[in-house]
Amino acid sequence: MSDSDKPREACGVFGIYSHPEAAALTYFGLYALQHRGQESAGIAVFRDGEIITHKAMGLVPEIFDDRLLAELGGGSAIGHVRYSTTGSSKLVNAQPFAVRHRGKSYAVAHNGNLVNAHELKSELEASGSIFQTTMDTEVFLHLLVKSLKGGLEQAVVKTVQQLKGAFSFVVLTSRGEIIGIKDPNGFRLLCLGQANGNYVLASETCALDLVNAEFIRELDPGEILIISENGLKSIRPDVPPRPQSLCIFEYIYFARPDSTTGGLNVYEMRKAHGRQLAREAPVDADLVMPFPDSGMYAAIGYSEASGIPFEMGMIRNHYVGRTFIQPTQSMRDFATRVKLNPIKELLKGKDIIIIEDSIIRGTTAKTRVKALRELGVRNVHMRISCPPHRFPCHYGIDFSTKGELIAARLSVDELREFLGLDTLHYLSIDGMLDSSGVEDPRRYFCKACFDGDYPVQFDEGLSKDCMDC
Amino acid sequence: MSDSDKPREACGVFGIYSHPEAAALTYFGLYALQHRGQESAGIAVFRDGEIITHKAMGLVPEIFDDRLLAELGGGSAIGHVRYSTTGSSKLVNAQPFAVRHRGKSYAVAHNGNLVNAHELKSELEASGSIFQTTMDTEVFLHLLVKSLKGGLEQAVVKTVQQLKGAFSFVVLTSRGEIIGIKDPNGFRLLCLGQANGNYVLASETCALDLVNAEFIRELDPGEILIISENGLKSIRPDVPPRPQSLCIFEYIYFARPDSTTGGLNVYEMRKAHGRQLAREAPVDADLVMPFPDSGMYAAIGYSEASGIPFEMGMIRNHYVGRTFIQPTQSMRDFATRVKLNPIKELLKGKDIIIIEDSIIRGTTAKTRVKALRELGVRNVHMRISCPPHRFPCHYGIDFSTKGELIAARLSVDELREFLGLDTLHYLSIDGMLDSSGVEDPRRYFCKACFDGDYPVQFDEGLSKDCMDC
Amino acid sequence: MSDSDKPREACGVFGIYSHPEAAALTYFGLYALQHRGQESAGIAVFRDGEIITHKAMGLVPEIFDDRLLAELGGGSAIGHVRYSTTGSSKLVNAQPFAVRHRGKSYAVAHNGNLVNAHELKSELEASGSIFQTTMDTEVFLHLLVKSLKGGLEQAVVKTVQQLKGAFSFVVLTSRGEIIGIKDPNGFRLLCLGQANGNYVLASETCALDLVNAEFIRELDPGEILIISENGLKSIRPDVPPRPQSLCIFEYIYFARPDSTTGGLNVYEMRKAHGRQLAREAPVDADLVMPFPDSGMYAAIGYSEASGIPFEMGMIRNHYVGRTFIQPTQSMRDFATRVKLNPIKELLKGKDIIIIEDSIIRGTTAKTRVKALRELGVRNVHMRISCPPHRFPCHYGIDFSTKGELIAARLSVDELREFLGLDTLHYLSIDGMLDSSGVEDPRRYFCKACFDGDYPVQFDEGLSKDCMDC
Amino acid sequence: MSDSDKPREACGVFGIYSHPEAAALTYFGLYALQHRGQESAGIAVFRDGEIITHKAMGLVPEIFDDRLLAELGGGSAIGHVRYSTTGSSKLVNAQPFAVRHRGKSYAVAHNGNLVNAHELKSELEASGSIFQTTMDTEVFLHLLVKSLKGGLEQAVVKTVQQLKGAFSFVVLTSRGEIIGIKDPNGFRLLCLGQANGNYVLASETCALDLVNAEFIRELDPGEILIISENGLKSIRPDVPPRPQSLCIFEYIYFARPDSTTGGLNVYEMRKAHGRQLAREAPVDADLVMPFPDSGMYAAIGYSEASGIPFEMGMIRNHYVGRTFIQPTQSMRDFATRVKLNPIKELLKGKDIIIIEDSIIRGTTAKTRVKALRELGVRNVHMRISCPPHRFPCHYGIDFSTKGELIAARLSVDELREFLGLDTLHYLSIDGMLDSSGVEDPRRYFCKACFDGDYPVQFDEGLSKDCMDC
Repeated sequence: MSDSDKPREACGVFGIYSHPEAAALTYFGLYALQHRGQESAGIAVFRDGEIITHKAMGLVPEIFDDRLLAELGGGSAIGHVRYSTTGSSKLVNAQPFAVRHRGKSYAVAHNGNLVNAHELKSELEASGSIFQTTMDTEVFLHLLVKSLKGGLEQAVVKTVQQLKGAFSFVVLTSRGEIIGIKDPNGFRLLCLGQANGNYVLASETCALDLVNAEFIRELDPGEILIISENGLKSIRPDVPPRPQSLCIFEYIYFARPDSTTGGLNVYEMRKAHGRQLAREAPVDADLVMPFPDSGMYAAIGYSEASGIPFEMGMIRNHYVGRTFIQPTQSMRDFATRVKLNPIKELLKGKDIIIIEDSIIRGTTAKTRVKALRELGVRNVHMRISCPPHRFPCHYGIDFSTKGELIAARLSVDELREFLGLDTLHYLSIDGMLDSSGVEDPRRYFCKACFDGDYPVQFDEGLSKDCMDC
Repeated sequence: MSDSDKPREACGVFGIYSHPEAAALTYFGLYALQHRGQESAGIAVFRDGEIITHKAMGLVPEIFDDRLLAELGGGSAIGHVRYSTTGSSKLVNAQPFAVRHRGKSYAVAHNGNLVNAHELKSELEASGSIFQTTMDTEVFLHLLVKSLKGGLEQAVVKTVQQLKGAFSFVVLTSRGEIIGIKDPNGFRLLCLGQANGNYVLASETCALDLVNAEFIRELDPGEILIISENGLKSIRPDVPPRPQSLCIFEYIYFARPDSTTGGLNVYEMRKAHGRQLAREAPVDADLVMPFPDSGMYAAIGYSEASGIPFEMGMIRNHYVGRTFIQPTQSMRDFATRVKLNPIKELLKGKDIIIIEDSIIRGTTAKTRVKALRELGVRNVHMRISCPPHRFPCHYGIDFSTKGELIAARLSVDELREFLGLDTLHYLSIDGMLDSSGVEDPRRYFCKACFDGDYPVQFDEGLSKDCMDC
Repeated sequence: MSDSDKPREACGVFGIYSHPEAAALTYFGLYALQHRGQESAGIAVFRDGEIITHKAMGLVPEIFDDRLLAELGGGSAIGHVRYSTTGSSKLVNAQPFAVRHRGKSYAVAHNGNLVNAHELKSELEASGSIFQTTMDTEVFLHLLVKSLKGGLEQAVVKTVQQLKGAFSFVVLTSRGEIIGIKDPNGFRLLCLGQANGNYVLASETCALDLVNAEFIRELDPGEILIISENGLKSIRPDVPPRPQSLCIFEYIYFARPDSTTGGLNVYEMRKAHGRQLAREAPVDADLVMPFPDSGMYAAIGYSEASGIPFEMGMIRNHYVGRTFIQPTQSMRDFATRVKLNPIKELLKGKDIIIIEDSIIRGTTAKTRVKALRELGVRNVHMRISCPPHRFPCHYGIDFSTKGELIAARLSVDELREFLGLDTLHYLSIDGMLDSSGVEDPRRYFCKACFDGDYPVQFDEGLSKDCMDC
Repeated sequence: MSDSDKPREACGVFGIYSHPEAAALTYFGLYALQHRGQESAGIAVFRDGEIITHKAMGLVPEIFDDRLLAELGGGSAIGHVRYSTTGSSKLVNAQPFAVRHRGKSYAVAHNGNLVNAHELKSELEASGSIFQTTMDTEVFLHLLVKSLKGGLEQAVVKTVQQLKGAFSFVVLTSRGEIIGIKDPNGFRLLCLGQANGNYVLASETCALDLVNAEFIRELDPGEILIISENGLKSIRPDVPPRPQSLCIFEYIYFARPDSTTGGLNVYEMRKAHGRQLAREAPVDADLVMPFPDSGMYAAIGYSEASGIPFEMGMIRNHYVGRTFIQPTQSMRDFATRVKLNPIKELLKGKDIIIIEDSIIRGTTAKTRVKALRELGVRNVHMRISCPPHRFPCHYGIDFSTKGELIAARLSVDELREFLGLDTLHYLSIDGMLDSSGVEDPRRYFCKACFDGDYPVQFDEGLSKDCMDC
């Protein structure tokens, strides 16, 4: 189901405090967050004074079964889903990440990217620390443990004050507390819910829905939220006041359409972007369609605003797993066709508008457009429901170099030609922000991947090395 | 992905004549036909005078890998996907079914149901035949072998003349020929295509598309088509002339929307049914939506004809595999929620129209409607894009008893109440036929499951026992 | 653990009448018989009027687990372990073999080889029968079903009278009876036991021991033993009286040393052969040793009779599974070394006697002798505890052609040279028979593989084709 | 194959310097060392400046396949097999253990147990170190990294000087060097070999044999041996001179009989112990036998010295895997019987001597003796080829508490009664030492488990916690 033409999210996190079926509920939470990371997953449970962790490569339902969940059992639990480079040797980077120190255990799950991980790591290594992973998450734990003398709370505050970048952490402590931490810019989502009196933390509200939890609120930027037997305790350390920098691309592409996070419904925002796109870049055509399933909601919005009929012009094969036999030489374009088949009768001789939510490398889109041309489609117009991606993300999305962003290399017109389109238009930055449904969108969202205006500074040379989730 | 509220197709078949990568192409053909049967799959290849078969329980990509396909290799090949009752002991019923007789091998893959299998079997057993499976397919081979004295062609003709019911066979002979057979009523689809000069047979055109084959034509009812080194030879034995009885429910539910079979595009017919439904059963509402993904195309048609906006009001979790951990006691309605999550923000307080393509048992629909009610949807209207299913199918669809058809037991109004709906309307039989795009639809389609008008008679007591695919 | 230098047994069978844990006990019975066949295994259980079968490629504990055995459950059961040529497509030949006829089911497990299977098959095919396997076992069921009119008992008698060759069958009937059948020559072992009142049939007594069953008696040659709710019924059809022809090679190589079958203990006979060998072929040496583990018991006997110390001069690696990574080019003789490592300190500069129980192709022995030479062993003498294998077996052992028997091509002296030995001696046929512990051994054993004196005639050209187990 | 009545070794290690097929050779080395640890295994390879590790629970051939070994490839490699408590969550403790520090990687494999690991860990934690495992191996790496300023060599020396206890390390450095380290007492074996010019380190010589390497020498106690592009460099840091304390129980039970380590052949020493046992504790009997396979070689020695015939009175089932279905209630003593079956004909009415190499808990031996009694054996004498185990081992064998040692709780006579024996005798400490073949055995071996004379002191309360391998 992976599509090399699409950016990949880094991670999803989940936590639940003191529940007799904590492992099972975390499993379901991760199930709902599977779209945020499909390479590895893990659950850590605090029970009887110990933290037990199970993690592996693969999808959540492939990794856990009844027996394993029963073994992990109840207590407090955190979980994580993650993308990572392939290779079984990379299991070491799966999360949650658990360590022992002075007979106590700590585990952490992380979504985001620290831009000063490299610096911090160097300092730690200079004082003799050793690292077992390439994750910046490990830096967090080293710093935490070194600050424990003043108590766990102060250690967390002190640790967070040393971190720079995008981070949403869920921490499981040696006393079974759950701690949610969001960076002062609020780049990555993290929300609080409650299921029958049990507090739950999750990257998106769709995970709350699946475990029957009520949404309470999104964590504030810079907030440290401790869930313990004393209930909730929110710490807002004395951090320099900064604008909110919520990643708008979460809404455009990553988050599930049924999530309503940060007060905004993903589905609605995508439709609004589609409507805005119809206003900014109208064109006469017989039908408007997405490449399934990405772009679906913006296409509905575009159809609504333009009056041009919405159609599912290409059909997705639901049974395509993550692996399939490589096709024979004689079967051109198989990889495209096995996933999507166009409806010849519908498309032949027509003028069509394709709505896409983003173009990163452009290779898949090019192949699909070609397939439509060969079918006899007359005019192919493409509309992208966000502005061109011209700048790498240093806060947790995996297009971390300019080189892989085709819109950084080609003008829109060159790209139109590369993709074989009749017309190509992107949503404008202003259109994207103004139709987002937020009052002061320019102070609310990070849009650095579109305009290069990075809310948190970083050392370009180093940040790539410790790119992480 | 299975949904107990939906009927299940019996089978899909595929065949390719003399190709160096026959096994691999058959694999891809079955891949495209996976929606027709997800319980077992198999491939039989004729190579160097022998037929080698591999079949197993599971999905096509789970069963075959590179090594296995390379081992099966090239030559002529047939393949099959099948639903069956669960249980590993039922592997014996997986197809293709291969036998040996006098040093020669024959294999067959079958889609359909013989209504006189029981009778034929009794006669065969009286003369000492033994059976290893519960499939009526085995009857076909017994009859074939008993008639071989006059040569294979005559044996096939003689065998087919003894069969009653619905059948589309693909046969692989001991000389590597491929034979396609369709029953005189033409209940089940079977089409001929050509890929770089190699003839291909498949249940639906989507399988031709995937292997880059051009569609040539649908087999005629009663036709026996032999593919050999002499090219095509069509035999139309002296069968009593009968009306065509193509299963219309293939178009409504089973076939892939990108298939254009029997001259009709599935996607277009579903949209036409949706438009007709809007004309027959209009209602004022804020939006029209399917339960994904079934009903999607009729919903687009309904929206188009009614002007009511189309929305994807429920989101499908793409990562739900066939198995997942059973939820805990405290998690009500989990099975529904794990697959589909409604967009609260979109639906709350609204009047909505749900388009479904069929209701068999009604249990899933009831749970989903309840979930929508709890969310705060105001009025829930449901429109079904076919008439009520009141009669069992004896020709290869798995609702073979009246008892399991809720519309056979309840009136539409009782069913409306059972499902918790504000209004419920079905497409009329006339509306279904007249909007189907066929010239003389009453002579073209089998619609027995709606009106009990069975094109081929059967002994009610027996036909269930040998229900097969 | 397979060794291409050793003959392979055909099969082992087991049956238990009416026990609440029939499947589990059959599992254990097969466990004990695993040495008789390691390629596939299966269990068929009669329960509630139906026969349920599960069989697969692999070892018994790989195929069955708790869940599967619980599913198979109790009633009457039969089981089978089998060698077969490799390839997953050969699952079709796994046993027990089950068929349905007129609503009734029959299953059978077979050890042996019918020499007239080809003829019988041709006759059956001429009357329209079809075959799904290449097993002669299928012939048995065809014949049985064709004779059912006079009742099951008479059908069994009539069927057995048509068969020629070696066979020990265990049959499971459609009423849950268990029938044991032994051919009139008594080639293959089949014994009766009783576990807490439940009758059990097994190829060897070691299977009785494992399920805590008391040994009652060996079935007589030509006996048909029916186990039903009426207890035991023995039928001895009017077959021409023939001498017993028990396969002596079962004692020499196949049977487990802890089996005491046909009134003879395997361990004791092997030791007796070893003692006789010491008398027939003495040689001065420092030690006598087997190649583990085959030859172990004859080596103990040889040591005892000769006074030369017994040593385990080569150590077997207990963790070598059936598959291991192929060694690199630079690692000569790895396949030998990974299984057996010689004790350098013990063997260097010594004169040694190796006791082997048989040599079929000679390739493994040659490699091992070479390894000993390279280690610095001075003189290597080999003694074989049976006569040279010069004739193929047509009664169920897998050396079915002369070509693969090295002793049929080379004289003993040529073979000595081929193997790189200082001296080589075989046990004489007379010595083998006279030391066997049986009163009239020349009328008791089949020794055709040594002297070509076949107790049952066959058509040489055909018998190979239907070679089976 | 595990036997709860037997002690379990801790680990086996292997290393090879700079070989194009390093991973494959390490695989084979671990294969040969599998008897030293069967719960997890791993290989770490240094290639192109990086260390890649793969480890998993299970046996060596279950964990690695061709693809994986090809991926790991060549360079320098180390490997490890290990026992550990069960549970998938314990994968974290599998070795080799690899860490990163300042862009460099280090990996280590360990056999032994540090008695001061707890103390060292506390000191490290006080300075902010965190631990991911419960292994003392992790302590080694922390200390190493903290000492790196003066260069790797000095760091190793400084680290080793802080360690107390039993350790044989194989280290893989960030420059691809291999370092072998043995503790100053020389508790655990570690030898050097050479295969076609490539240096190899291994716990036992049987691993050298399998990879075709010549044995060069055993490492000296306290030696640090660095293998690099400059060849060998041996460092013997200024450690206080101590007596050699080689674990004699390695020879009695753990090591493979074909290993010749520390200048002593395991097979020969076991036979010598058996001969000595015959002299110390003679008894009149019909036969002498081992419980397979442990005790085999001492039994051969006992037979040789006493003239009483050696027999394999019980037969081991070669197909018993590590898991098998639990037997039904009605099957008494199944766990014993499934592995070993006694030869009734041989044993009934006889006086027998059983030779065992050790008794830890005594439960298995008790069951087996009972089975022999039930069979009708007349007198059962047992002779143990080592003295009674009365003291826990703190240097790497898993009987770490007195409580589990039955000989620490019962007198020999009480134990005789508990096991149901007629007579029971242990080898004397003096007999064991004097027959060992070493010149000054009292200065050569650690025999603390027999007499409590521990060569290295430890804090009783702490050493158990960090019991490791």
